[in-house]
Amino acid sequence: MDDKLMLMIPGPTPVPETALLALAKHPIGHRTSEFSNLIGEMTQNLKWLHQTQSDVMMLTTSGTGAVEAGIINFLSLGDRILVGCNGKFGERWAEVGDAYGLNVERITAEWGQPLDTQQFAEKLTQDTEKQIKAVVVTHSETSTGVLNDLETISRLVKEHGEALMIVDAVTSLGAVNLPMDAWGLDVVASGSQKGYMIPPGLGFVAVSPKAWEAYKTAKLPRYYLDLGKYRKSAAKNTTPFTPPVNLMVALHATLGMMQAEGLESIFSRHQRLMNATRAAIKGLNMPLFAPDTNASPAITSVAPQGIEADPIRNLMKKRFDIALAGGQDHLKNKIFRIGHLGFVSDRDVLSAIASLEVVLQELGYEGFTPGSGVAAATRVFAQS
Amino acid sequence: MDDKLMLMIPGPTPVPETALLALAKHPIGHRTSEFSNLIGEMTQNLKWLHQTQSDVMMLTTSGTGAVEAGIINFLSLGDRILVGCNGKFGERWAEVGDAYGLNVERITAEWGQPLDTQQFAEKLTQDTEKQIKAVVVTHSETSTGVLNDLETISRLVKEHGEALMIVDAVTSLGAVNLPMDAWGLDVVASGSQKGYMIPPGLGFVAVSPKAWEAYKTAKLPRYYLDLGKYRKSAAKNTTPFTPPVNLMVALHATLGMMQAEGLESIFSRHQRLMNATRAAIKGLNMPLFAPDTNASPAITSVAPQGIEADPIRNLMKKRFDIALAGGQDHLKNKIFRIGHLGFVSDRDVLSAIASLEVVLQELGYEGFTPGSGVAAATRVFAQS
Repeated sequence: MDDKLMLMIPGPTPVPETALLALAKHPIGHRTSEFSNLIGEMTQNLKWLHQTQSDVMMLTTSGTGAVEAGIINFLSLGDRILVGCNGKFGERWAEVGDAYGLNVERITAEWGQPLDTQQFAEKLTQDTEKQIKAVVVTHSETSTGVLNDLETISRLVKEHGEALMIVDAVTSLGAVNLPMDAWGLDVVASGSQKGYMIPPGLGFVAVSPKAWEAYKTAKLPRYYLDLGKYRKSAAKNTTPFTPPVNLMVALHATLGMMQAEGLESIFSRHQRLMNATRAAIKGLNMPLFAPDTNASPAITSVAPQGIEADPIRNLMKKRFDIALAGGQDHLKNKIFRIGHLGFVSDRDVLSAIASLEVVLQELGYEGFTPGSGVAAATRVFAQS
Repeated sequence: MDDKLMLMIPGPTPVPETALLALAKHPIGHRTSEFSNLIGEMTQNLKWLHQTQSDVMMLTTSGTGAVEAGIINFLSLGDRILVGCNGKFGERWAEVGDAYGLNVERITAEWGQPLDTQQFAEKLTQDTEKQIKAVVVTHSETSTGVLNDLETISRLVKEHGEALMIVDAVTSLGAVNLPMDAWGLDVVASGSQKGYMIPPGLGFVAVSPKAWEAYKTAKLPRYYLDLGKYRKSAAKNTTPFTPPVNLMVALHATLGMMQAEGLESIFSRHQRLMNATRAAIKGLNMPLFAPDTNASPAITSVAPQGIEADPIRNLMKKRFDIALAGGQDHLKNKIFRIGHLGFVSDRDVLSAIASLEVVLQELGYEGFTPGSGVAAATRVFAQS
């Protein structure tokens, strides 16, 4: 049966019909008062979503472009930065720093494990000359399903005083609490195909007053990714370059849906989806790749034993048209990842787990009692 | 009456229903064989559109991001470049060069006039030490409606031998003949919301083998805009970062429409739309801003005398829901611009001109005989 695709990957995530229909509306001119009004409303909603009074800007980029903008606008050649690397995306931001000639120090942890906050504490307290200009952390590491302890790391950065706290919030924003102002985050970057519930193509960068101070003296070259231009335009409810009009009209719709649901409900829904998924995987006697203490509410990684990961994914797709994500780089075929981010309901998790039970049986995996995964998930949902 | 908007601005341009419906399709995973097949087919069609055997890559950017990528991937700090500046976009590429510390030499012409090819000839022939590393030219200058003589300039660049010919083809590709290989163009950059007939959000860069040679030693920093990454991924029919899936599905549809129409028909249609529009404006006794010798088939700029430009635009919008573009920077309220690029038919030009006649009468402009604009357009269409 065609046209029954169910996306359970960490992006693109499912898109509600309201947003799909908004995408199909004929574009309007982006230099019109009608479109400016739309930008004005969305900017307010984006501030609400980021829990901030600071500027939140929209760029025509993927999440990577947004994070890169969030790094290069506030630093100069040779600046020392710490980058948390415990997955593909943390590693990517270190590569961005390398590409621009920053003095990048990687704080590494094994893929699947959280960053060790103690290592950040040591580096930051030892830096009495305040040479560390920024700390870059991936909040939810999409490649592994680990949620790093951003709250603690940002507190350490505040205590340091000089460094900026730059956050890759691509798969955490709109899934887990991320109070930009309360935690004192300086830069928060994200992408549209995640918690925002629209297709890919739009990036977001929120910038604190402290980061704007750093911007004044930052010398890395940029033009298309120059956030100063976006700020200047945003003050007039416009964009410096042509924005992705249709995606923004769709975003206007989904931001409204998010406001109707409420931040607390959004966060508790993702928490519930995570809890049910993890309980189910445990019920199937399959090892979870990220520890319970640092599990991402956006995505659950599973490291099956005695059976390869990719045949499971392939059969889930073929048999049930459910798309799961695979492992990246050295984790290829070692893990599979279940996305439960954005427009995902309790029902979707039940569907996925029940389907997974069929697939595991068809593949001859005998480590579980049929029904045990679904049963574990149902108990979580019945209690929350 | 709502919902009858007619876009006659140079971007976003009208989008056919086929593409709008494709936009509304639920996104699929971008790391799937299904999506790779789509990229593979589109890459072939993009080569056909660019009339090239070279790589054509897709980026999640607006046109500006694509042109910036087309400049910064092939140059190093302090490199001397010539930039043709006879409008807002030419000026923008000079600013990009400044932002990255290139040695930018502006070859200027008054806005509304074409670049003087003789000035390029002099600079290039005098450069016996081959220090000029690139020449950047905006083919169709969207801000003025001037079509620069790219064929001559690219011939001069070929004779120089060292410099790369970098082209902003944002409003020329898909409107006017632009044979990349036959003219020896090294970099051709464009954006989706123009001749491609889809909404904004996708950028394109085509790169010649000679430019890839320059890439090997080019040192300007880049990561998100690093075309080497796109090339490597494109060879496997994928993208280095998450692509705007829905826009690409829509593009697949419009590229099919373009192939069905054929390059020659597309070019002659735009030529006809331009001829009819210009004849009509002359029939209304209004001065054209760009000369007949260098008029863009994508957009016609009008510099009304004895009447301001913006009231015309405003009434066209209010009375007929036709969106025209205004003048930019010092041309604000001095000119208005009629876009006839992409999914625009003969009928659209007739509608726009007839509506313009009503508006001019309502505004008390007495310089023309009612019917004379439409009559002139009809004669062009009747003969071509």
